[in-house]
Amino acid sequence: MKIDQDIKESVSLEFSRLASEKNKRGEKIISLGLGEPGFETPLPIIEATYDALKNGYTKYSNPLGLIELREVIRDKLLKENQIKASIDNIIVTSGAKQALSLALMALLEPYDEVINFTPCYVSYVPQIKIAEPTAVIRNIDLKREDFSLDWAQLEKKICKRTKLIILNFPHNPTGRMLSKQDLNHLAQMVRDYDLYVLSDEVYERLNFSNLPNYSIGAIDSVKEKVVTINSFSKAFAMTGWRIGYLVANSDVIKIVSMIQQHMNTNTCTFVQKGACAAFSLNQDFINTYKMELSEKVSFMVDVLKSNKGLQLNPPQGGLFAFLNISNMNMSSDTFSSKLLMVKGVATTPGVAFSKNWDDHIRISLTTEKDEFKKGIKLVNQFAKEVVEI
Amino acid sequence: MKIDQDIKESVSLEFSRLASEKNKRGEKIISLGLGEPGFETPLPIIEATYDALKNGYTKYSNPLGLIELREVIRDKLLKENQIKASIDNIIVTSGAKQALSLALMALLEPYDEVINFTPCYVSYVPQIKIAEPTAVIRNIDLKREDFSLDWAQLEKKICKRTKLIILNFPHNPTGRMLSKQDLNHLAQMVRDYDLYVLSDEVYERLNFSNLPNYSIGAIDSVKEKVVTINSFSKAFAMTGWRIGYLVANSDVIKIVSMIQQHMNTNTCTFVQKGACAAFSLNQDFINTYKMELSEKVSFMVDVLKSNKGLQLNPPQGGLFAFLNISNMNMSSDTFSSKLLMVKGVATTPGVAFSKNWDDHIRISLTTEKDEFKKGIKLVNQFAKEVVEI
Repeated sequence: MKIDQDIKESVSLEFSRLASEKNKRGEKIISLGLGEPGFETPLPIIEATYDALKNGYTKYSNPLGLIELREVIRDKLLKENQIKASIDNIIVTSGAKQALSLALMALLEPYDEVINFTPCYVSYVPQIKIAEPTAVIRNIDLKREDFSLDWAQLEKKICKRTKLIILNFPHNPTGRMLSKQDLNHLAQMVRDYDLYVLSDEVYERLNFSNLPNYSIGAIDSVKEKVVTINSFSKAFAMTGWRIGYLVANSDVIKIVSMIQQHMNTNTCTFVQKGACAAFSLNQDFINTYKMELSEKVSFMVDVLKSNKGLQLNPPQGGLFAFLNISNMNMSSDTFSSKLLMVKGVATTPGVAFSKNWDDHIRISLTTEKDEFKKGIKLVNQFAKEVVEI
Repeated sequence: MKIDQDIKESVSLEFSRLASEKNKRGEKIISLGLGEPGFETPLPIIEATYDALKNGYTKYSNPLGLIELREVIRDKLLKENQIKASIDNIIVTSGAKQALSLALMALLEPYDEVINFTPCYVSYVPQIKIAEPTAVIRNIDLKREDFSLDWAQLEKKICKRTKLIILNFPHNPTGRMLSKQDLNHLAQMVRDYDLYVLSDEVYERLNFSNLPNYSIGAIDSVKEKVVTINSFSKAFAMTGWRIGYLVANSDVIKIVSMIQQHMNTNTCTFVQKGACAAFSLNQDFINTYKMELSEKVSFMVDVLKSNKGLQLNPPQGGLFAFLNISNMNMSSDTFSSKLLMVKGVATTPGVAFSKNWDDHIRISLTTEKDEFKKGIKLVNQFAKEVVEI
């Protein structure tokens, strides 16, 4: 395929590698970069995986995924998301990234238009271009004051060539959630324009606000047009395991399954068996972790409230905060680089999430608590020093 | 992307599912279909994987793969394949399928031509079309008498728009090997036409002939143009693990790595750690298994030698035999279906591997020894009965 300039190396991975290189050279770095949950994979999942390994789950699985895992996912979808799906609507994938890629490959045809809310997860644009190089991407900025959806812009950019809308709430990088009203409004547009929705819900279990989670796939009138994507990575600290899933109507599943069969056969079989143990775990660990995330946000709010250079719109869920640095009069790349150089703190420049967001930086909430607090204080100090200069 | 009619469900998977459904209904089926090695993943690999699981190898890895695994692969390439590579020339993938897909995505540009020897592995054509829907595939039949390369056809079909040649030796489905002379001849063409070679060597450790293995990536004058692909699946009975690797020049690796970062991040981290144990194992198990494969081939030769309907060109390596049924006066689909219905033996119709090979069927050598022998006797009986009718 033609390698589009949009398909570049993931900036967030690049920055985290830079930081880890500095670390290796003995320079003490506090990384507020990459988003891996700050706890370990729960032991029952590890033990279930070992049992599977010993008991011959080392051969190919059904390309859609083990039936027992799809049953567990089906039950979870109904109970937690009010999504009614049969196991034939579910396909297990090597992480949400693969699910996203497969869905985009299955759905996009030449010259289709895609609505993408920005700032956005760094891989969406490359994934769209990999799936369909001729696709036209319509980026729509979230509102600057509160990261909510900009309906006026959406009405303006949607058209009959629009094939799909990508949603990702709780949102990376802003931590914003969607309300039920938002989803109903979106559902109306899906019906009016006969669109598909790709709903990437990987942060749903990390909602530390008091707002309830809603899935657009639960809305009966549009559920056939919704592809729901999720993963075990963030909720169960299973980033390195590479396991996620995709829920869609049977026509989409048929195409996704064909593509997956030729690109990957199936997701690692004993990893699938291990994942079966996830939803039946005692979920105390995740509640504890959400409390920690929430405390970190409070700490940030507290430390940064008197800082004239930085404005924080506190996240409601997910693993990140998106900090407005527009008063600093420097690009996000410059800010992040100088911060790394002067204070030894790694963050991700906002420009990684869309060129219009060069006046923000992303801060990961996953760093160990004391380290995180130290990091935030240094960010605060750095911004104050720059403003004073 | 546009879903080409070439991107259909893998026939070999489809047939094996049919057989397993019959099995579930209580009908006794002997499957000579899918190719999974007939032994278990060696225990030291399983134990190394469990150790990795317990010791925190559950997070993202370097997107190219764990350094320790790439070092092991580098040493293996030098020792066993005479391929000189640095760890930066190696990327670990979710199986050879993903390696093939990524390489094709990285190499193919619109309207490039690809030389593909047929019959071929069922996923090559779909993978090419997924990677680059406008690619032109030039299929070249292996010679019917001995499955060797047809140089005259190759000279005829190669042209300045040819971007790459796909090689897969030991060959699926015929079991044919390439000689050093073949590789030198191919290398000459690579230089003359400035081509890339994708060399899929997943069956190399299952060479049960007395012929040595050769890798085209070992030839200095072309090594920059060779992408070598391999996997742990066949040699270590790790089909369900989904782990393989790709060796290429640094420009290709750069593009492959970018695509992989956006589609998959990395291959399961503790699976990579487990794979580190593979090459240092005592390799007796593989020698024993090769002897078993060789005995099965001898048995087939012996049983079928008096059968006028079937001709066997014995395989030299890999997990399959490709049986000529042209004297049976029926399509391969009909032959395989009737054989399944009448004798309860599942095979894969030759048409799955290219439309020109509808007068062959593929027989897997992986079935348990006694079961295999029973199956071959039934194939023999079936063919004799049909000829007599």
